[in-house]
Amino acid sequence: MTQSASENDLPVVAFHPFRWGDPAHATHLPEAAKETLAAFGVKQPAPALDPAQIELPAVALDAATLAELAAVVGEEHVSAAHEARLAHTRGWSTPDLLKARSGDASDAPDAVLYPATHDEVVTLLQLCSRYRVAVVPYSGGTSVVGGLAPVREGYAGVVALDLKRLDSVLAIDPVSRTATLQAGLRGPAVEAALGAEGFTLGHFPQSYEGASIGGYAAARSAGQSSAGYGRFDEMVVGLTLATPRGTVELGTAPKSAAGPDLRQLVLGSEGTLGVITSVTVRVRPRPEVRVFESWRFPDFETGATALRRLVQDGPEPTVLRLSDEAETGINLADPAAMFGGGPGGCLAVAGYEGTAADVEARRAGATAVLRDAGGELLGTEGGESWRKGRYRAPYLRDPLLDEGVLIETLETVTFWSNLHALRAAVTEALTDSLSGQGTPPLVLCHISHLYETGASLYFTVACAQTEDPVAQWGLAKAAANAAIRSCGAAITHHHGVGTDHRATYAEEIGPLAVDALQAVKHALDPAGVLNPGVLIENLPLRGDAAVTP
Amino acid sequence: MTQSASENDLPVVAFHPFRWGDPAHATHLPEAAKETLAAFGVKQPAPALDPAQIELPAVALDAATLAELAAVVGEEHVSAAHEARLAHTRGWSTPDLLKARSGDASDAPDAVLYPATHDEVVTLLQLCSRYRVAVVPYSGGTSVVGGLAPVREGYAGVVALDLKRLDSVLAIDPVSRTATLQAGLRGPAVEAALGAEGFTLGHFPQSYEGASIGGYAAARSAGQSSAGYGRFDEMVVGLTLATPRGTVELGTAPKSAAGPDLRQLVLGSEGTLGVITSVTVRVRPRPEVRVFESWRFPDFETGATALRRLVQDGPEPTVLRLSDEAETGINLADPAAMFGGGPGGCLAVAGYEGTAADVEARRAGATAVLRDAGGELLGTEGGESWRKGRYRAPYLRDPLLDEGVLIETLETVTFWSNLHALRAAVTEALTDSLSGQGTPPLVLCHISHLYETGASLYFTVACAQTEDPVAQWGLAKAAANAAIRSCGAAITHHHGVGTDHRATYAEEIGPLAVDALQAVKHALDPAGVLNPGVLIENLPLRGDAAVTP
Repeated sequence: MTQSASENDLPVVAFHPFRWGDPAHATHLPEAAKETLAAFGVKQPAPALDPAQIELPAVALDAATLAELAAVVGEEHVSAAHEARLAHTRGWSTPDLLKARSGDASDAPDAVLYPATHDEVVTLLQLCSRYRVAVVPYSGGTSVVGGLAPVREGYAGVVALDLKRLDSVLAIDPVSRTATLQAGLRGPAVEAALGAEGFTLGHFPQSYEGASIGGYAAARSAGQSSAGYGRFDEMVVGLTLATPRGTVELGTAPKSAAGPDLRQLVLGSEGTLGVITSVTVRVRPRPEVRVFESWRFPDFETGATALRRLVQDGPEPTVLRLSDEAETGINLADPAAMFGGGPGGCLAVAGYEGTAADVEARRAGATAVLRDAGGELLGTEGGESWRKGRYRAPYLRDPLLDEGVLIETLETVTFWSNLHALRAAVTEALTDSLSGQGTPPLVLCHISHLYETGASLYFTVACAQTEDPVAQWGLAKAAANAAIRSCGAAITHHHGVGTDHRATYAEEIGPLAVDALQAVKHALDPAGVLNPGVLIENLPLRGDAAVTP
Repeated sequence: MTQSASENDLPVVAFHPFRWGDPAHATHLPEAAKETLAAFGVKQPAPALDPAQIELPAVALDAATLAELAAVVGEEHVSAAHEARLAHTRGWSTPDLLKARSGDASDAPDAVLYPATHDEVVTLLQLCSRYRVAVVPYSGGTSVVGGLAPVREGYAGVVALDLKRLDSVLAIDPVSRTATLQAGLRGPAVEAALGAEGFTLGHFPQSYEGASIGGYAAARSAGQSSAGYGRFDEMVVGLTLATPRGTVELGTAPKSAAGPDLRQLVLGSEGTLGVITSVTVRVRPRPEVRVFESWRFPDFETGATALRRLVQDGPEPTVLRLSDEAETGINLADPAAMFGGGPGGCLAVAGYEGTAADVEARRAGATAVLRDAGGELLGTEGGESWRKGRYRAPYLRDPLLDEGVLIETLETVTFWSNLHALRAAVTEALTDSLSGQGTPPLVLCHISHLYETGASLYFTVACAQTEDPVAQWGLAKAAANAAIRSCGAAITHHHGVGTDHRATYAEEIGPLAVDALQAVKHALDPAGVLNPGVLIENLPLRGDAAVTP
């Protein structure tokens, strides 16, 4: 057992505009990987452009509009500089990175605004409504589903609304165990502030170093400790939303029967209904101890059944995940050893955090269940290795793209009885699409979020890039989306909808539910300036839209 | 320890139009109660009218419209008979009962429709939209907040849409542990069907004998075992909604990031957005064993802190509740001994259900915490007595009303740090209002639903009736609502909004959130026929409303 996680308290860092995460953690490929890649016919593509060389579209907003916006936040908090615009262009999906590498910055905002208060956000939204300027709420900027690339057509311009100056912990209530956090706070800053009071949020998504509170809320994030701490949408008990028509404050109680739970309407709205400027979240005592262990199962089905037993009948670990045979073989969970061969079978991780007595009891109970279900305990080395490396895997993408590998992830979620059919269908769709394009892929899969009634599936896909890797992935992704839809599963478990999933999402919820969302948007954002085209289709303005609020 | 609950498998019974529950369980007041009542100056009022004597308004719908509706469901499944109309008049709040007793049936529907399928419901909603007939979705009919008394003005008539023929268990998935249940199923029927497969829903509200699945969902019900099994809105993973524009099906996965959680927009919508015709819920294995124990705490604050420790740090019982000193003194939890004097201090109940090992572990852990927090274990007798009598307390209301007592309940929920201030404010508001009317009340309170960040407060109020008890309670209730609002708490924990809480609810969520709900309603129910005036204010038809769908 080790003491509680100080590595969760990371400093806020400045990111490269299109390479993942903290530049200090940039990594290189192991030699073993390069040999594997050669066998896949990977050829080195043209090198990525230097960010300074990338040409941005001319600024569409006129000086008078920019001056009005600047009057709200102060001259020094508006920027139309090349660096700021490029840094706020799109997010972190592989297509986003490929476009940036090739010099395509057509989605760059005209300017970046840095408000410092909720009221400034409301005023900016009112001005943008008046002048019909599209607004991209920007928090960590880590979207991997095109959530930061709205429609530009029909708008006077596009601004990114960067919330990084809304970075205060507004309140901590140790009796109710809640904390009120501003949207621009990043995960490490939240953990540092809560940790000083003896608490943790317990939300550790893979984007932890870069993502922030507003994004967690707007996109319904789920962290790697979701088994123990829940999803972000389960942590939120209150929120404040800035809209062009004013402020919405929700959350008078943990739960109630006072109408629909409107918090759950705002969570997942991806900046289309308003800008979440703060949330009140449930917090927990910082864990005294932690144990992470790895397990081997003979096959994925056996492992999945074992994990299902834990999540349905308990006791439930804090972290629970299972790699399939292919992912176990690549050993993706341990970048240091990646492509070096895994332990065989299917690797699982079970992690426990809490008080010493609680961890001991849950660990003993879960160990008995996992053993009975066919698991072999491998010890803490593999578990600790996964834990320490858990934010590192995405750093491998940039050197892989450098070498000519197309690598991307996608995820879905379904009910337990549909899980294996879904995994087979998505794997087949990706394999068929990419093989048909002459680039047979590796398709790896794991379960990392579990519920009593179902679980998520997270796929990693790698193959050689073709001449047009954006189009290449587009075909594969469309095939995967169709497979997910035909299985009746959700198009995303925690990445969100953005623009990439919009069409499939509309099929998933059906036209009446889309109409309901459009109606809510129209009620709160009558000029339609909030992230147009994200989540739901951008509709032409109605006749009764009040552009001046 | 006893075997699992066979008393949950109750038969469906026919109810008196305005006396609570199963007539076979009607009860009388203990002599001790009558003595207490005399001390309160209670005088016997005029006896309740015989239902057959109550005059109903003339049927407003013409024969042609009724014939069109009958063509959908069959002649034998439409009724404008006195008995059917009276039985579907309002719900079970004390004002509802007082009005019925005095012969006021002004809210009676013109007719009752009994569709058998989801498609019939859709067709009926389309016809009612065409002819602008207001529709009251009616499931168990147990609303205590005026949820069954919509606006009549501006409509051609009002029909009750009774869903009792939608009473099938559509599917049970033992792997995913879900069940798909039609809206008209009542709690006992659900438990019987699930029990046959080894499962339980675990939802046992006080209205269990009468309420049904559709109502649980539409009004965000919470049962007495919510600590262990969760609220009803936490059980729902999918639902089907019939609207005048067609069908909405939600729930492709337990949880996802595919946009807002629209299930949580429908849950709590109280029949205003559509008619929930079925839900898919998470089920659990039927418990092997059960232990219910009672505890005494020296005072409410000590007891509340003890319960908070359990719900925040575990282990959590399946049932957890705490009566304040006044409720403990009256011994409301045990109708047989009511008014006979309680054990002193504050009585709590901790109940455990599950496998033998799970119950043993949680019971041992919770017992240690409760002892450490100042509790005294009284044993299983009081706990079992509470459990066996838990559906009986509401039966006392009818004989109390007969005797001239005004008795009603109300409930709220807030965060832990606000709990005692809220209890004091509501108690004071009720006491001041009723004392000011010359009828000083008893105000009793308990905690029966707990969350990591807060808890519900449930108040029972009793005093002598004045000449106009409906107006008398109206003043007291308004004072309580204002107190709840000024404390920033939720206007209801599990009773719902209905018409009684509509104004306070609008203040609680604010005008923009009300606009958002109105927009959703307009999108799904353009003619505005669904439960008009319930939950949110009934708006005049917009110019663009399509009355013919």
